Amino acid sequence: MKLHGNPMSTATMRVAAALYEKELDFEFLTIDFNSGEHKKEPYLSLNPFGQLPAFEDGDLKLFESRAITKYIAHEYANKGTQLIETNDSKKMAIITLWLEVEAQQYEQPASKLLWELHFKQLFGIPTDPKVVEENEAKLSVVLGIYEKRLSESKYLGGDSFTLADLHHLPTLHFLMSTQVKKLVEPLPRVSAWVADITARPSWSKVTSMLN
Amino acid sequence: MKLHGNPMSTATMRVAAALYEKELDFEFLTIDFNSGEHKKEPYLSLNPFGQLPAFEDGDLKLFESRAITKYIAHEYANKGTQLIETNDSKKMAIITLWLEVEAQQYEQPASKLLWELHFKQLFGIPTDPKVVEENEAKLSVVLGIYEKRLSESKYLGGDSFTLADLHHLPTLHFLMSTQVKKLVEPLPRVSAWVADITARPSWSKVTSMLN
Ligand SMILES: N[C@@H](CCC(=O)N[C@@H](CS)C(=O)NCC(=O)O)C(=O)O
Ligand SMILES: N[C@@H](CCC(=O)N[C@@H](CS)C(=O)NCC(=O)O)C(=O)O
Repeated sequence: MKLHGNPMSTATMRVAAALYEKELDFEFLTIDFNSGEHKKEPYLSLNPFGQLPAFEDGDLKLFESRAITKYIAHEYANKGTQLIETNDSKKMAIITLWLEVEAQQYEQPASKLLWELHFKQLFGIPTDPKVVEENEAKLSVVLGIYEKRLSESKYLGGDSFTLADLHHLPTLHFLMSTQVKKLVEPLPRVSAWVADITARPSWSKVTSMLN
Repeated sequence: MKLHGNPMSTATMRVAAALYEKELDFEFLTIDFNSGEHKKEPYLSLNPFGQLPAFEDGDLKLFESRAITKYIAHEYANKGTQLIETNDSKKMAIITLWLEVEAQQYEQPASKLLWELHFKQLFGIPTDPKVVEENEAKLSVVLGIYEKRLSESKYLGGDSFTLADLHHLPTLHFLMSTQVKKLVEPLPRVSAWVADITARPSWSKVTSMLN
């Protein structure tokens, strides 16, 4: 298996987290953002959007981080951590629901805040306070709903850690070093959940790629 | 099965399209946008985000349109049109990839254009030409990639119609009555695909709910 990406890319980190949870061996091929390698051939043949990551398993070529993690979770269901539910369709429906909440409700404000509060500072671009305020308000609504959900089950998808939790890791990781931490702190269950999922050994392996 | 929603809501239409493709009987419960019924109990217990739609199948309660369609496609795999691939994991991975492209790349510019060019006009709010320009540029990139993909297979997910196509129907339907049509027309394969999928009998049933 080959993962083409960059350790600084949240979408790459999402896939790496899934591969480590499944205890799968993979080759990591670094794509150089600075030289624009992702906007040229041969990379564009792997991902026509010119975004990171891309993935190969034998002759299967995939892109879109969440499509890759879902493939890994299904194809290697019997290896490492079970990241989905293969036997009970109602339990799987609930995992799918929280996967969609991550993608449709959490991802947009989270990635906008990440850009404003983390990457812009890294690149020395001024933060736009209006965008921050707007997206903090949106993210607060989502986190409030997570607080309630986590009173019903230990993880978003049910009683065990699944892809529905894992997909949050890369953005959460960076946001917890920004002022977004203040939105999480008043929520005891969300705080415990963040502490729990970011403490997973697989996640340490991903963050150690950053060094 | 119960579908709580509104015929004017694209997310509701997405679920209705899947139910008609699967030839499933369901009860449609109209939620009144104008009175804010979706922002109050009892609806909030069905969807804590206060958005349409919500869905019940016996004691299973779901929200997020794409989670509902995926549940329906898996749970009722043997009824009506096959909307996913249950036997071949590599073929399913490709369907999942294009499902993610719809959700991550197409949905955002499409729904912003829908708001600017369709709903704002309906409500008598002036259109913001900058937002239109920006999102037409984003949508053009996506449609260009679809044009190439549709030269390799008849549908986005492979040789047959799947959820990866179906998820586009509600936004495409409205956008084709706006200036966005001009982005589609120069693309012969995308044009043929739009004509094909909007001509499905299931889709006529959905649009007839609008009257
Ligand atoms: N929805 C895509 C997003 C991929 C994405 O936006 N990747 C970023 C890095 S995290 C990237 O390549 N950005 C450069 C660009 O868009 O030009 C996924 O989940 O794989
Ligand atoms: N990601 C959600 C989106 C749901 C959504 O935005 N629904 C709209 C109607 S299409 C709505 O309820 N809007 C009212 C609101 O957000 O207050 C889904 O796919 O179900």
